[in-house]
Amino acid sequence: MFSPLIKELMESLRCLPGVGPRSSQRMALHLLERDREGALRLAKALGEAAEGVGRCRDCRTLCEDDRCDICAHAGRDQTMLCVVENPSDVMAFEQAGGYRGRYFVLMGHLSPIDGIGPDDIGITELLQLVTKNQVSEVILATNPTVEGEATAHYIAEELKRRDVEATRIAHGVPLGGELEYVDGGTLAHALAGRRKLVT
Amino acid sequence: MFSPLIKELMESLRCLPGVGPRSSQRMALHLLERDREGALRLAKALGEAAEGVGRCRDCRTLCEDDRCDICAHAGRDQTMLCVVENPSDVMAFEQAGGYRGRYFVLMGHLSPIDGIGPDDIGITELLQLVTKNQVSEVILATNPTVEGEATAHYIAEELKRRDVEATRIAHGVPLGGELEYVDGGTLAHALAGRRKLVT
Ligand SMILES: [Zn+2]
Ligand SMILES: [Zn+2]
Repeated sequence: MFSPLIKELMESLRCLPGVGPRSSQRMALHLLERDREGALRLAKALGEAAEGVGRCRDCRTLCEDDRCDICAHAGRDQTMLCVVENPSDVMAFEQAGGYRGRYFVLMGHLSPIDGIGPDDIGITELLQLVTKNQVSEVILATNPTVEGEATAHYIAEELKRRDVEATRIAHGVPLGGELEYVDGGTLAHALAGRRKLVT
Repeated sequence: MFSPLIKELMESLRCLPGVGPRSSQRMALHLLERDREGALRLAKALGEAAEGVGRCRDCRTLCEDDRCDICAHAGRDQTMLCVVENPSDVMAFEQAGGYRGRYFVLMGHLSPIDGIGPDDIGITELLQLVTKNQVSEVILATNPTVEGEATAHYIAEELKRRDVEATRIAHGVPLGGELEYVDGGTLAHALAGRRKLVT
């Protein structure tokens, strides 16, 4: 019943997480009836981000420059590295405050069942960065899930072999949850209470 | 903490109804991490729809052609006109089935407090269409809200002056609700139980 351009818009909106047929219809009609400027701005932003955003050379997080702001910041301690699964985890730590080291973003976690091995989450690059920056402590802040724990342990073993200290954030992070939904205070506490993973 | 292109994408996503800062971040990262093809398809669909979708010459619904499929369909009875507030209401009636007449889409309702008068919702065009197509019955299917009722009554008075029968959908539509969320059976029932508004 809707015309082809409207139908295509409704179907395309389904690529957004949490958007089903009902809300894609509501979104499409809202934009066309009331906010075409917003639709055009979003179209431009989507195109530019999808084509322009790459990975930071050092930490692998999403960004359009060669290196992200944090890696490019001379004031951040490069001998301390916090390993997280997602770019939003970096944001969560930065918002919690109190951490002055750098990050490494795996963009996922080990998942043998899905065929995701060390190479797919940048472990080689991580170990190279550790050597290059003479990192003295790697804080493993993967999610407190089965896969996150397994990933942390895998990295800890690799670091132990290279005589680099690996710690795991500990207190306060609820088990089975996603790191990015944890409040800042809890995260700061977990960071302060970190312990060596392989002793 | 996010780079400019990612920030702009997150902000642009806020034009979508029901999308706050939390979900816009989740959506932006999801697209960039896992579905750039979907992002580019959506960018294209948004641009094309925002620039290409206009209004049907007859019923005023959203469509990119001169006339929408229903108005262009020779088999639809043009002497029966169902007046609705939104394009999604047309969809609701079509999905309910059983109606073979045409529609007129106000794209809103009268709202003096917001400065929305008869001209803003196409009443002149509606009355012209009624004359042009020799419409014998206008079914007023505006939403069962205060504004929807007032709009229906305003149109009914105008039609009465022109000796055109105006009916209002009646039974089964819950008061205070939005028409587009009513199930097909209820809508079909309400349509069948319509009555003259100004007697
Ligand atoms: Zn970086
Ligand atoms: Zn039409």
